[in-house]
Amino acid sequence: MADPHPMDAMYEPLAVAVRRLVDFTIRTTVDAGAVLAATRLVDEASERLGVSLSPGSFGVQSAPDGRVGALGNVAIGTRNPVAPPLVVHHEADGRVWAEFVLGAQYEGPAGHVHGGICALVLDHVLSATAHQPGRPAFTGTLTLRYVRGTRLGPLRAEARVDRVEGVKTFAVGEISDEDGVTVTAHGVFILPKPPSPGGPSAT
Amino acid sequence: MADPHPMDAMYEPLAVAVRRLVDFTIRTTVDAGAVLAATRLVDEASERLGVSLSPGSFGVQSAPDGRVGALGNVAIGTRNPVAPPLVVHHEADGRVWAEFVLGAQYEGPAGHVHGGICALVLDHVLSATAHQPGRPAFTGTLTLRYVRGTRLGPLRAEARVDRVEGVKTFAVGEISDEDGVTVTAHGVFILPKPPSPGGPSAT
Repeated sequence: MADPHPMDAMYEPLAVAVRRLVDFTIRTTVDAGAVLAATRLVDEASERLGVSLSPGSFGVQSAPDGRVGALGNVAIGTRNPVAPPLVVHHEADGRVWAEFVLGAQYEGPAGHVHGGICALVLDHVLSATAHQPGRPAFTGTLTLRYVRGTRLGPLRAEARVDRVEGVKTFAVGEISDEDGVTVTAHGVFILPKPPSPGGPSAT
Repeated sequence: MADPHPMDAMYEPLAVAVRRLVDFTIRTTVDAGAVLAATRLVDEASERLGVSLSPGSFGVQSAPDGRVGALGNVAIGTRNPVAPPLVVHHEADGRVWAEFVLGAQYEGPAGHVHGGICALVLDHVLSATAHQPGRPAFTGTLTLRYVRGTRLGPLRAEARVDRVEGVKTFAVGEISDEDGVTVTAHGVFILPKPPSPGGPSAT
């Protein structure tokens, strides 16, 4: 594991606090007066943070170590309260996996994860296994098969490369709960060709 | 349009405030002291809301009008700060569309929407067009083709039913920005068969 980025220590506790607030915003049953008081506190927090804002999205900020973009990522970003965040583990053989808990904020059908959130998780882990160090992989196609509903709660996702044909990497993966597989995925990822000697350089 | 649910008026302003807070949490550049002060305000808001919480997810709560589940939905839920939220318009011919703006909290590649968030949007609008009143449609498979990167900002999604074969509904759709289509999708949705006379009833 890399050392935590210095900015993590400063902003991560805020993101953790906002994740809890998001969950409570959906699940609270307090009365109108308490909701109004909480809303005022939220607005006061926003006003303090809003004194100085990056004008665009987070990822467009650059940093020498290249990690900054991932901090804002909607799947894995520790600074993004929308992200669970996934922690993607890379095995020596190229397989990747993540174990995580999805709560009320990711709901689609009652008590179940939205099918599109399953797609977000699978897109991310398939990309992670298809991505070669120094050779970014772009998603070409992604196909999801919904075997059964995915209940909110503890889940596992995993992915591996099935085969490579030229610039195409074929990856497969799945989401499982304690009773087995709920969604499977296969994706085709496009690896940009390395620049030929004397040819145009990659940017 | 249906009249607003009475609970909307009470909780929606809170969800709107939390959406802004999520965005500022990612984009703020204030110093450590201001971050700490904001974190304390967020925690105080959570403590007020947390005095009384629904024990599970939001959708498992029942309501006579059946709308409550959607309020917490991660794609369209007005009470879910993670949802943009999408407002899905239904045309008389069955087509559906939504126009929306995605900001920093939905980022994958720098300045672009995460491919999995495009999948979430497309899963939702394809489901919306495949769903017949009183006959819920379950996603069987969903295939996404990423034509090019989808920039953060104003976007449009639309979907329509291509054909129906028995219990299968085939839907197609796409996401576009001002320069054209960025992601296309096709999905197969399974409609439960209506119960036969004297046969087992649907649950």
